Amino acid sequence: MPYSLLIRNCGQLLTMAGSAARGPLTGAQMRDWPILENAFVACENDWVVALGPMSELLETHVTAATQVLDAGGRVVMPGLVECHTHLVFGGNRAHEFQRKLQGEAYLDILASGGGILSTVRATRAASDAELLENALHHLAGFRCYGVTTVEAKSGYGLDAETELRLLRVAQEAGRRQPVRVVPTFLGAHVPGPEYKGRPAEYLDMLMQEVLPHLNPQEVPFVDIFCEEGAFSLADARRYLEQAQAMGFGLKIHAEQLHDLGGCEMAAALGAVSIDHADYLTPAAAARIATQTQGQTVAVLLPLVPLFLRQDRYAPGRAFIEAGLPVAVSTDFNPGSCPSKNLWLALSMACLKMGLTPREALAAATINAAWAIGQQQHCGSLEPGKRADLLVLDVRHYEEIPYWLGENPVRHVVIGGKLE
Amino acid sequence: MPYSLLIRNCGQLLTMAGSAARGPLTGAQMRDWPILENAFVACENDWVVALGPMSELLETHVTAATQVLDAGGRVVMPGLVECHTHLVFGGNRAHEFQRKLQGEAYLDILASGGGILSTVRATRAASDAELLENALHHLAGFRCYGVTTVEAKSGYGLDAETELRLLRVAQEAGRRQPVRVVPTFLGAHVPGPEYKGRPAEYLDMLMQEVLPHLNPQEVPFVDIFCEEGAFSLADARRYLEQAQAMGFGLKIHAEQLHDLGGCEMAAALGAVSIDHADYLTPAAAARIATQTQGQTVAVLLPLVPLFLRQDRYAPGRAFIEAGLPVAVSTDFNPGSCPSKNLWLALSMACLKMGLTPREALAAATINAAWAIGQQQHCGSLEPGKRADLLVLDVRHYEEIPYWLGENPVRHVVIGGKLE
Ligand SMILES: [Zn+2]
Ligand SMILES: [Zn+2]
Repeated sequence: MPYSLLIRNCGQLLTMAGSAARGPLTGAQMRDWPILENAFVACENDWVVALGPMSELLETHVTAATQVLDAGGRVVMPGLVECHTHLVFGGNRAHEFQRKLQGEAYLDILASGGGILSTVRATRAASDAELLENALHHLAGFRCYGVTTVEAKSGYGLDAETELRLLRVAQEAGRRQPVRVVPTFLGAHVPGPEYKGRPAEYLDMLMQEVLPHLNPQEVPFVDIFCEEGAFSLADARRYLEQAQAMGFGLKIHAEQLHDLGGCEMAAALGAVSIDHADYLTPAAAARIATQTQGQTVAVLLPLVPLFLRQDRYAPGRAFIEAGLPVAVSTDFNPGSCPSKNLWLALSMACLKMGLTPREALAAATINAAWAIGQQQHCGSLEPGKRADLLVLDVRHYEEIPYWLGENPVRHVVIGGKLE
Repeated sequence: MPYSLLIRNCGQLLTMAGSAARGPLTGAQMRDWPILENAFVACENDWVVALGPMSELLETHVTAATQVLDAGGRVVMPGLVECHTHLVFGGNRAHEFQRKLQGEAYLDILASGGGILSTVRATRAASDAELLENALHHLAGFRCYGVTTVEAKSGYGLDAETELRLLRVAQEAGRRQPVRVVPTFLGAHVPGPEYKGRPAEYLDMLMQEVLPHLNPQEVPFVDIFCEEGAFSLADARRYLEQAQAMGFGLKIHAEQLHDLGGCEMAAALGAVSIDHADYLTPAAAARIATQTQGQTVAVLLPLVPLFLRQDRYAPGRAFIEAGLPVAVSTDFNPGSCPSKNLWLALSMACLKMGLTPREALAAATINAAWAIGQQQHCGSLEPGKRADLLVLDVRHYEEIPYWLGENPVRHVVIGGKLE
């Protein structure tokens, strides 16, 4: 069968291949994945079917029906996988950013109706069509940055009806354009305003009125924010255990601002990812790595402390040395990280968390795919995987985090189609 | 005469108008510039000829020959002015970035032939055509970010011949594409390798063999790096005085890593800008503001400490309070800031230096124009100025630094032509 798409003359082909059967890349694996020089990638319809050095290209599969893209010696790599976003929300919080810059305290902003509850109000007030339009706008932005798979959490509805609505909007957004959307239920973001001071009752409501209406085949993960002012360790455990019993995969926001032990708790339950982890100690990271045999991914979110003007960043370097696999994501959301620039997050993971360029690249592709259970479909280039890939405007992978905050993407291919 | 281009339905038109006759914006002026709501801008050929509320649009000037762009309620603003770049160089230093991340000390990298001298080697070895191709590549990148005027320093040749070559390449790059290029002579970047340990002799060579060959009409500014390991305060003063006597405007790189007094010295000579200023104290800033009557602009470069992993940022907020006008720039260069994302610099000026969004916007437009003597031509939208302007994908100026590291540009107009 002829190739439908052939990318030839890839100066460096970053495959990130070989992990899918084993588990996320850990330790030295994060920097030892294969690079093919002067290589090609061939696709048939949605799929990668062959890759290798140019000398092994079978010209018999290249016919008049083959679309040929000459990479001209540039870097070609898998599409980025964005494994932690709060994609669907109403409005934005630009005005609040200005107030914060002028020194107003977060609690004062919250007391005056700002903070997360202002997004909840705007989200509840928005129509499905408005939420969908916003989500599509942001997905188009992600696509410009070469992000071909996006996790999308609910969590700005905070009542049963709106939370279900947000998940439907995320799924619909995935159908309307080519970037793949993986929805996650984060109703347990903070207690809804109607449950102020009663977090356990709010979780009871979610367990009774929302989880039974979700299908783990469509919404594979349940997430919770374990933090002072959100949900306690005990409440989070009870909630995640229930979600697990109902067939959902688990995720947690934990150790963002304090060390409450949320990461270890969730990892012990078999969570697919533990996210933020700015206050997770290297010792706890080592225990998690051992206990989970490297199957739970720590999702690092370096743009959040940058935007919040905090000095503490997750010790990513130490996590890798401890054997804990890491992913990198933006945490795109209107309050603590209004950025879809995952390349900037890669650079900041290098500068602030000590990752090497290779580790950062693995963290935003194959390990990010593991962090959302998509490792069979994306995150690496190998025969049988979806043909989601990027041609970059650089000639060496080391340049990727080096050109700080720039977008190196020249071409985006999703499902074998040049966008 | 009919308008050649009309931008209608600007939700917010940020004019930054009114300063050109007086001086750079200082103090409260930096946040009080006019915003027109529901407005238009009209151009004839290269020039802005009218702007105002939509109700005042004279439809008689809108004919079949008028290109009409509907901004659809979005923000429209002057093209960004990038007032401090090292645009022309050979190679890049991505490999060194990786070594730095792995903990190798700068002095070890320098000792092994890395650092600035590796760029000097690559630059000297590059042909004019290669240097031009690189410069054009980076100018195209700047244009994507809505930068319509770029200052371009020499400084990676460090011998008479190559320094002159770099200035010619910068000028040629300006002729080959629409972004305006303003060349600056920075032969006094560091002493050339042939003058190791003899900085004064190196400066003598520049004064004898280079400055006489430069025309201040074509290369309006002479710049020097006053810092330990580069040039002393006394050497810098002597050099700048000579340049001034020969008719050049003055600039200085000073107080980047130590407080040597370079900013005050250069300001006392009437320098148009004092750049970096991370170690300039608010008290010295106030003295400079008073002595220069607010005519010398402090150019803030927040991406440099970010990329170098340094904690000290120029106290921009205090400078503004002290009456010192500030501009913001990337300092684009291969060693300490490989970034053309001026929007990211704006966000970091807010987050790390305490500027408000309005101050940051003035700092990257009209005050940046003052910092390179281009205030009669660009940096604001008013009749008689060049029609260099941007339609952004946001509806309120507060969103600009808020969407961290993203590129808000939807359309770029340079000299009245939609790019
Ligand atoms: Zn989050
Ligand atoms: Zn510089």
